[in-house]
Order: sequence, then C-alpha cells, then structure tokens
Amino acid sequence: MIRFGILGAGRIGKVHARTIADSGKAQVAYVADAMADAAASLAASVGAQVASVEQVIASDVDAILIATPTDTHADLIEQAARAGKAILCEKPVSLSVERIEQCLPVVEKAGVPLMIGFNRRFDPNFAALQKRLRAGEIGEVELVTIISRDPAPPPVSYIERSGGLFRDMMIHDFDMARFLVGEEFVTVHALGGALVDPAIGVAGDVDTASVQMQTASGKIAVITNSRRATYGYDQRLEVHGSKGMLRAGNVHMTTLERADGNGVTQDVIQNFFIDRYVAAYAAEVQSFIDAMASGKTPTPSGRDGLEAQKLAEAATASRKSGQAVRVG
Amino acid sequence: MIRFGILGAGRIGKVHARTIADSGKAQVAYVADAMADAAASLAASVGAQVASVEQVIASDVDAILIATPTDTHADLIEQAARAGKAILCEKPVSLSVERIEQCLPVVEKAGVPLMIGFNRRFDPNFAALQKRLRAGEIGEVELVTIISRDPAPPPVSYIERSGGLFRDMMIHDFDMARFLVGEEFVTVHALGGALVDPAIGVAGDVDTASVQMQTASGKIAVITNSRRATYGYDQRLEVHGSKGMLRAGNVHMTTLERADGNGVTQDVIQNFFIDRYVAAYAAEVQSFIDAMASGKTPTPSGRDGLEAQKLAEAATASRKSGQAVRVG
Amino acid sequence: MIRFGILGAGRIGKVHARTIADSGKAQVAYVADAMADAAASLAASVGAQVASVEQVIASDVDAILIATPTDTHADLIEQAARAGKAILCEKPVSLSVERIEQCLPVVEKAGVPLMIGFNRRFDPNFAALQKRLRAGEIGEVELVTIISRDPAPPPVSYIERSGGLFRDMMIHDFDMARFLVGEEFVTVHALGGALVDPAIGVAGDVDTASVQMQTASGKIAVITNSRRATYGYDQRLEVHGSKGMLRAGNVHMTTLERADGNGVTQDVIQNFFIDRYVAAYAAEVQSFIDAMASGKTPTPSGRDGLEAQKLAEAATASRKSGQAVRVG
Amino acid sequence: MIRFGILGAGRIGKVHARTIADSGKAQVAYVADAMADAAASLAASVGAQVASVEQVIASDVDAILIATPTDTHADLIEQAARAGKAILCEKPVSLSVERIEQCLPVVEKAGVPLMIGFNRRFDPNFAALQKRLRAGEIGEVELVTIISRDPAPPPVSYIERSGGLFRDMMIHDFDMARFLVGEEFVTVHALGGALVDPAIGVAGDVDTASVQMQTASGKIAVITNSRRATYGYDQRLEVHGSKGMLRAGNVHMTTLERADGNGVTQDVIQNFFIDRYVAAYAAEVQSFIDAMASGKTPTPSGRDGLEAQKLAEAATASRKSGQAVRVG
Repeated sequence: MIRFGILGAGRIGKVHARTIADSGKAQVAYVADAMADAAASLAASVGAQVASVEQVIASDVDAILIATPTDTHADLIEQAARAGKAILCEKPVSLSVERIEQCLPVVEKAGVPLMIGFNRRFDPNFAALQKRLRAGEIGEVELVTIISRDPAPPPVSYIERSGGLFRDMMIHDFDMARFLVGEEFVTVHALGGALVDPAIGVAGDVDTASVQMQTASGKIAVITNSRRATYGYDQRLEVHGSKGMLRAGNVHMTTLERADGNGVTQDVIQNFFIDRYVAAYAAEVQSFIDAMASGKTPTPSGRDGLEAQKLAEAATASRKSGQAVRVG
Repeated sequence: MIRFGILGAGRIGKVHARTIADSGKAQVAYVADAMADAAASLAASVGAQVASVEQVIASDVDAILIATPTDTHADLIEQAARAGKAILCEKPVSLSVERIEQCLPVVEKAGVPLMIGFNRRFDPNFAALQKRLRAGEIGEVELVTIISRDPAPPPVSYIERSGGLFRDMMIHDFDMARFLVGEEFVTVHALGGALVDPAIGVAGDVDTASVQMQTASGKIAVITNSRRATYGYDQRLEVHGSKGMLRAGNVHMTTLERADGNGVTQDVIQNFFIDRYVAAYAAEVQSFIDAMASGKTPTPSGRDGLEAQKLAEAATASRKSGQAVRVG
Repeated sequence: MIRFGILGAGRIGKVHARTIADSGKAQVAYVADAMADAAASLAASVGAQVASVEQVIASDVDAILIATPTDTHADLIEQAARAGKAILCEKPVSLSVERIEQCLPVVEKAGVPLMIGFNRRFDPNFAALQKRLRAGEIGEVELVTIISRDPAPPPVSYIERSGGLFRDMMIHDFDMARFLVGEEFVTVHALGGALVDPAIGVAGDVDTASVQMQTASGKIAVITNSRRATYGYDQRLEVHGSKGMLRAGNVHMTTLERADGNGVTQDVIQNFFIDRYVAAYAAEVQSFIDAMASGKTPTPSGRDGLEAQKLAEAATASRKSGQAVRVG
Repeated sequence: MIRFGILGAGRIGKVHARTIADSGKAQVAYVADAMADAAASLAASVGAQVASVEQVIASDVDAILIATPTDTHADLIEQAARAGKAILCEKPVSLSVERIEQCLPVVEKAGVPLMIGFNRRFDPNFAALQKRLRAGEIGEVELVTIISRDPAPPPVSYIERSGGLFRDMMIHDFDMARFLVGEEFVTVHALGGALVDPAIGVAGDVDTASVQMQTASGKIAVITNSRRATYGYDQRLEVHGSKGMLRAGNVHMTTLERADGNGVTQDVIQNFFIDRYVAAYAAEVQSFIDAMASGKTPTPSGRDGLEAQKLAEAATASRKSGQAVRVG
C-alpha cells in the first residue's frame, strides 16, 4: 500500500482522495487543510487522519499530493522533496518561471519523483488521440489546433490573482500542444481582447485570445481560448499529419437528438470542468500510483510544468507588446 | 440523337424533359398534355413540338416517356409498345396487379424496352449504398430497414384516389427493399393507423404504417412510413450484413450547425421530394438514355414494377385482415 | 441504513453490491452464492457476511436483491415476499408467463415492494429520452423503433436454455417499447431466422428477428434484433411523435475521429453490455434504494415483468406460426 | 437580356458561361481566348461568337467577364472600364497591392460596376452562415476560425508564379474573414513552413501556414492552410459570438456511413474545388446578373479585392520577418 498525505481538501483534493481510496494499491493516511472542517470531512470519508501541513510532510507517508492554492505549490514541493516524498502537484508549480527554475533543482537534488497534474493528458479521448498519433496513424504531425472555451468568466477578483488568461487557462493548452507535437516551440505570438467582460480588460487581462506557435522544425500549433461559451465547456483538439487528421470532439450530456422544424438538435455538451474531466482526474492519479508501484518515473514532469509556463509567459509578453516572442 | 416523345407536361414531365435536353445524346421531339398551355410551354423550353398523345405515339420518335396520371399508364404502355417504341414510364404501371399482368405480355410480345421510373434507385446516396452492398462490403445481407416519411399528408381527396398508402407511398420502399435484398419476399405483414389525420382513416386508409417482410432464405426487411414528419422529408436506409452495416442518412439543406444553450443544432433536412431527388430524377433518365444508346436492357423493368405492386397489394390486404400474407 | 441481502455473487451481483456500498443510504449485510469462493470474495469487498440463501431470507435485512440464475427467480421472490422483504429481482421473473402469474399474487398478498431489473430504463440516454417524451417534447407518440444487436452470439448451449431470442434478448426491448409508448400492445407479429449461426436454427431458435406490435389506439412499435453486430453493441431508440422525433444513438468508446482517404471514421462503439450499461445498473439500484428510503413504490414492477413476458411469449408463438398473435 | 463577353475559355470560363446561358436573363455574345480551339468550343456550346479580346471589349456587350490568367486582370479591367462595361473579374485583381491601387481609380472614374469573383461568399453553406450571423443569431462576432486545405500541392512551377501561398490560396480566407467579421483587420501575424514538399521551401514559399489577425475593436480571426489533405478538400468555418457558435462543415460525397470493426466511417468529402464550389460559382454569376438587372452595386467589390490583397501582402511579409505587421 502506498500511503498518501493530501495537502488541500478542496474540490480537487476530494476528487483525488476518492481515486486513491478506490485504487486498491494506495490509501490516504493524512489530510491537511487550513479549513479544519474541510480536512476533517475529507479525512473521515477515506479513513484518514487530520494533521497540519508540517505534520503530513514529516510523517511516514510515501507520497504527498499537493492540492493547495497555487502560490503555495513551489514551497510545498521543496519541503516535500527535502523530506524525501514522491510528489503529485496540481498545475502549476508557480505562475513565475523564475520560481519554477529555483524549485526544480531542489527536487532533482532530493531525487524524488515529481508529477505535475496536467489532467487533460489523461482524458480518455485526448490520451487515445495522442497514443494513436505516436503510433503513426496519421504520419508526421504538421499542425495542431486546440480549442478551449469556458462556459462563463470567473469573477474579476479571481482574474486579478490568476496571472492572466495565458497562465491561468491557456496553460493547459500549452501543455497539450507540447504533448501532441512532441517538440519544443521556439516562437510564440498572441492576440487577445476583453470582448466578454470589459472589467476583465480594466483588470489588465483578456477573455478572448489566440496564440500561434512554431517549433524549430516548422510544426505549428494554434490555440484559441475564450472565457465564454454559451453552449458548454468547449474542449476540442484537431491534429493534422502527413497521412490524415485526428480529432477529439466535445462530450455531450447524452446521445439524444431531437428533429423538428428547427433542425436536428443534439443534446448540450458537458458544462462543468469536473464533470468533463472526471475520468481524466482519476486516470491522472492512477498513473502516478502505477508509476510509484512499478518504480517508473511519472509524467508529466516538473520540466513539463516549466516549459508550459515559459510558453504562457511568452504569450503574455507577446499579447502586451504585439510582437512575436522567442522561447528557449 | 435519340428522339423522345413526352406524354404529360406536369411537374415530373418538366424535370425529365430538361434532363433529356441537357444529355447531349437525346432530344425531346414532341410533348403531349391534356393542358394545351402546359404542353406548349414545356415544348418551347426544349425546342419540341406539341402534339396529341396519338400523334406522338404514331410519330417517328425512338422513345416514349410516360408522365401522365397513373390510371393511364397501362394503356399508354400498351399503345407505345405496339408502336415499337422504347418506354420509360413513371411508377406505377397500374395500381392493379391484375392490370399489370395483362400489360407486361404486350410489351414482351412487342420486344421493346420498358423501364419503370423508381427514381430512388438512382439517388446518388442509395445507388452508392446498393453498389457497395453488391460489391460485398458488408458481406451477406441479413436485415434491411427503410424509413420514409413525408413532411405532411396530402388532401383526403388525393388519398381517396391513391390506392392507399401501401400502393401510393410505400411502393417506393417495396421496390427499394427488393433492390437492396436482391431476393423476392414471400411473407408480408402490415400494421397501420390514422394517427395523423382521422379523416384519412374515415377514407379507409392509414397515414402511419409499418411492414415487415421475409424472403425464402430468411432475409428480413422492415419498412416504416408516415404521412407526417415535422422535420422534413425523412428518407433513410440501413442495411445490416454479416460483416457490418451500411446506411444512408438524410440530406440537410446546408452543413450549418449552431451551438448554444439548447444544444448543437444541424440545419433542417430537405423538405420537398423534387429537391431531395433532383439528382435521382436526372440519373434515372440518363440511365434510360445510356441503355438505349448502348443497346442494353434498362432497369428497373416492368417485372420490377409488378413485383413491387404485388407487395403493396399484400400489405394492403394484411393491414385489413391483421394477418400475414404469402406472396408469389 | 437499508440493509441488503444479495443472492447471487456473479457478474451482476458484484456490480449491484458496489452500488449499494457506495450509496451512502444502504449497505450489504449478507451475500449468498452456490459458489462459496464467489460469495466470500464479494462479501469481503463490501464488508458483508456470507450466508446461505435460507439464512439471508430469514435474516433481519430490509431488502433482498436476487441475481441468481433465471430459473430460481420466481421461487426466491415468493420466499422473500413471505419473509416480508422488499425485493429487487433481475429480469425476468420467469421465462414462463404462467409461473409469473402464480408468483405475483404471493408478492401482492405479502404487501412487499417488488422491482424488476430492466436496467435499460435507467440508462441516462434512454431515461432522458423517456422523460422528454412524457414532458410532451414531441407531442403524442406515433411510432417507436428499437434496435438491439449483440456483438456476437452466445454458445448454442446457452441458447438451448435461454427460452429463445424473444424471451432472452428481445425481452428488454418489449419492456422498453411499453416504457416509451405508455400503452399495452394488443397485436404482435414476429419474423426470425438463423442467419448468423445455422446451429442456432438447429436448436430451434433464431438469431435475427423483427417484431412489429400495435396498441389498441393504433401506436406502433418496431423492434429488430440480431445476435451479431461486427461494429459493437448496437443499442438505439427512435421515437416519432406528432411534433417531431427523438432518438438515442450509440455510445462511442471515445469522441475520436480520423479523416483520411477512406473517409471520416468515428471510434468504435461500446462493445460489452456491462460497460455500456454501467451507469444504468447503478441508477437502477439507486432508484430502488431511493424508493425504499422515501416509501414510494419502485418501478418497473412485477406487472411490468409480466407484460413484457407476455409479449415475448406472443412473439415466440407468432414466429413459429407465421401469424400475428393477439395479446391481453 | 444582358449580353456578356467572356475573356478566357478555360475551366472557370466554361463554368461561368453555362450559368449565364442558363440564367434566363443574360446570354454570352462573345468568347475570346488565346487558344482558338478553346474559344470556339465554348462559343459553340452557348451560341456565342469567337472574337479577339480587343473586339470583345470594343463590342456592344453590357458586361465583361474576365477569366484569363491573373497577370492580365488589372489591364483588362482598365480596358473594359474605359469601354464602359460592367465587369466581373476572377480574383485577384493583381498579386500586387500597388497595381490594384492604380487600377481601381480607373474603374471609379469610368463609373462602371466591378465585382471580384470571391466565389466562396456564394457557397450556399457559407452564405447561409453569414446571413444568419448578420441577422444576429449568435450575437456579436468574437472569433472566426477558417480552415482551408487543398487535397494536394500544385507543381513547383505553379508555386513559383503564384505569388506565394498567402496571395494564391489564403487570399480566399482573407476575404472570408472580412466577410464574416465585417470589420477591417489591423494586425496580421503569419507562420509557415514547407512541411509537405521541401521543394516548395526551396522555391521560397510555404505549404503549411497559419495566420492570426485582429481588428481595432479586438475581434480575432485565425486561418490555417495546407497544400495537403489526404481526406479531401477541407473547407470549414467556425464563428464564435456572444450568444453561441455557428459553423459550416465539409460536404461529403454521399450521406453513406459504414459501421464495422474499424468504427463508423462516413463517406469521403468533396475532393475537387470545382465540384465543391459548383453551386457557389453559379450563385456568384447569378448575383452579378441580378445586380445588373436591378441596378444595384454588385459585391464583393474592387475594394474588397484590394483589402484582401493587403492582408495577403502583410501575411507574406510577416511570415518572412517573423514579426506581426500593421495594416491600414
């Protein structure tokens, strides 16, 4: 049994705790959270004990799962690494590339596994696409298109602390682009505007954006994001290769269709990120557990987290300057 | 140049005249219609002359295209056959199996080609399906499903003269079932009701019906019909074989989709039979012209018309008795 | 906490035990199975005790879940009813209409709830369709089409004990037709053949079949079944009403599509009934628990089981005689 | 009757001549082409006379349709304008923005109508999308995505004379982006590579490219192009607005689908631009004829041609410099 300490008993902490408890190979030993009630409730549901962050890190657990607010991630990773724990940390390591670059050597020096929670790599649809891509089903990758749209914008108070759309939202797509293309991007150009909510613009951010990037070998990725999609949580991939195209579409609530005088209407798509990615969250944690159990290195790695963050930083700069930015 | 005489300058007569005129291999020499204006207008549009039915049949044309009311078909086929003309007759030869069985020997004795206008065999979608079926793409046929629904019922005055749903509407599907299965059906069972318009029931007919039929070797065809489809002219086929399934869906007005809070809505489907089957009508006439030009026997034949009519007659009887009817 | 005794620790027993254990409102107290190992393993996984069937029924549990072989259902229902237990029994009560008609009065006399496990009513797609239908979304029901095809035929040894395709496989579709139409069918006509495996024909059964049925008010249901579908477990519904059409399609393994010179290929559909209906099985048991917790009568009822069985019996007779059969 | 002189009897000249001849409101009076046989053949098919370019322009025709090689367009427009003829010219006016800026004042001075043949505006799918967009169906436009992929690259000899991918191929998409967004773009950034055929790179061009552009109000358009698509002629639009999304998909050869162990395969999409846009070409010419008949100004105008060309020029420069380019 792999014993876990969970830091953070919020929405995602709960989802992950359930996966660990149901895995058969691992268990939750401790739960820590600044909100005592949340920690107690989660601990009770999986037969764990409540403890402080420090106690959890100092305990005899094998692994630390970090699901606390973003600005604590880097510090906690360093502490857990120094304590010799395997680490599964929710993305991102930090909103600051510089901070990540300080943090990763600490992990390397400690020689512990670190996996970053880019959950979308584990979505059954996207994972199957990437696997078929790597198997050569459509030949060499030429062009990747990623569409990500949230149902509705978060409050401006959230936006202000978020690091901006490119670091907060498109970060998933930067990771996905790297995952699919399998090469590093060297040029990034971003456009953006506050078309959904002017207050987001006043806060210095954008709510509608596009980024195009290119690798040294010429492969292109195009990402579009919006904080609004009236029709649900729009999450699509399209990859063009030398022998064809692979794409992953949206997940509808049901397979229902209605035909009437207005046309043929399919049911709405999934509307909430936890519902949409419930299988991805479970597969992500399972993948970490499987890696630990078999002694393999879990992925995506800390370096994956770093590279995605560099792209987010470049896009943020490009959007402000209007010019393309070189990376790496 | 193959020279045609057209009997009947109505909706279908016009469609066919245009195909002949554009074919490059044939021309319309004469047009006859009880409505002098209609005949004159159609004749002018294709550079033909107006004549009486008798004059057209007695003329030097190579072929007679019969697009007159159903109750004249058998007589006109016999006259044209005796005059040695090749014949393309709109379906059906007659609403009476007995009358068809009198008529066909006249054609055979005259030794002239007779093709019956089951236009749907020539629809590009259905024709491609049947071709791929015969090529063995899904192995041996096991089960065929045909769905035909009209957008709205015709007036009861039309229903009263129509021979009933099975002879008037499902006749196309009986022919299609034979075309797809490639064997004769020996058992027919029909259900029906007046669910759309009670007046249709009062007139002794049904507006909603299903038929299931089986061949001697056990292959099954299921046909459903309705005089109403609020969403357009529903025309679908599905064929199951030992190696898979082939189906042909509806034709949408455009490829447009709208996504919003109601779901994802595809544009409406074609709503009018002449629009839906415009390519089929043209391919049908072209097939007759090609057969004449190359000396081949055109299909579907008079016997195809007879066999479909027998199925319609059996279904009509079955619906009334409630019992299955043996055919052939 | 509602305490359950589970009779039968096979495939479905396990699925149901997990749902009960995860429900938060109920628990498994005892498990009985002729295979001692199976009972022990399942009991251990949910913290229950192993007992004999007699001990379980005589125990203080609130409810009995019957997931034993079909030929034991009626006896066990009667015993559980006499012991005053609420009962959730896998379909069917019995392959014999006569036996069901003996059994149900015993349950009624005991005054205990009896729910029959027609899991497909609880499939999220089908349940949503039925709900929208009852809400009037497409007006009055006119015609229902149900397509059910298994990936591959079972061994002939299974077929021989199964009661035949209509009782063993189409029974689900008879229940679904009743569920969707909301009226009893009075006429049944069946066709069938052994097109997939001649040995099934030798055993007196069919592997390909169609049934059409009509209610007293004229509504029609058409069901097609096959023991083979090379492309997966084909499970589709289509309902036509006075105001439009509602349909539920197949569930694909992923949302992936590949476009290449062969066309645009969607991923395969679900291929295994337990995967396809995993959510349905859970919702079914949850519905029984919710009914118990709230004091409501669970559905589908024993009478639903009886009526579906009558249709299966009528279809079996019709297929043999070739003639339509009156029901009720 | 509006009398046309056609300059250029090639592939597109023939398509347009047929539309004019079938329009009922116009006729082809003269055809000119450097290839005497081509001119004669086309003239004969529509009952026109052969003449030299100079003779056609000097004749009494009402309108000149220019379907000659691109490098002759600007000169012929000027000559026709000076002769007082209405002009329908295939896109582009010129590969050089400078040359277009010389040409358009000549047309304006002459006061004759000039329409540029951006055929895709007239595609029934795209035209319907734009119409519904303007009608407010999805609110304010926020983001437009255009995908255009040719089945296979042209010979390098063609590439060398083409002005490059942005002027030769993406020009259609620049016009479409303006058509859909309804505002001018002020920033253009382009990426490109020779991923399909290295010889295209040697010739100084790209075969795979993406462009993102923004208007002064913040609206974004993203265009991706490739000279290769193994699955056919990929032509798709997607428009996101404040109230939803509208998209136009590819046109399949038939509605056929096959289901087997490989999945569910839809038929291939249209593969040849003339087939794909046959209705668009006809509607384009019909729109010009209708404008002339009613005295309205035809669109897209010469200025539309100019603005699209400016975007192509900016994209070409951006791709070479790696930096975004300001327009207008």
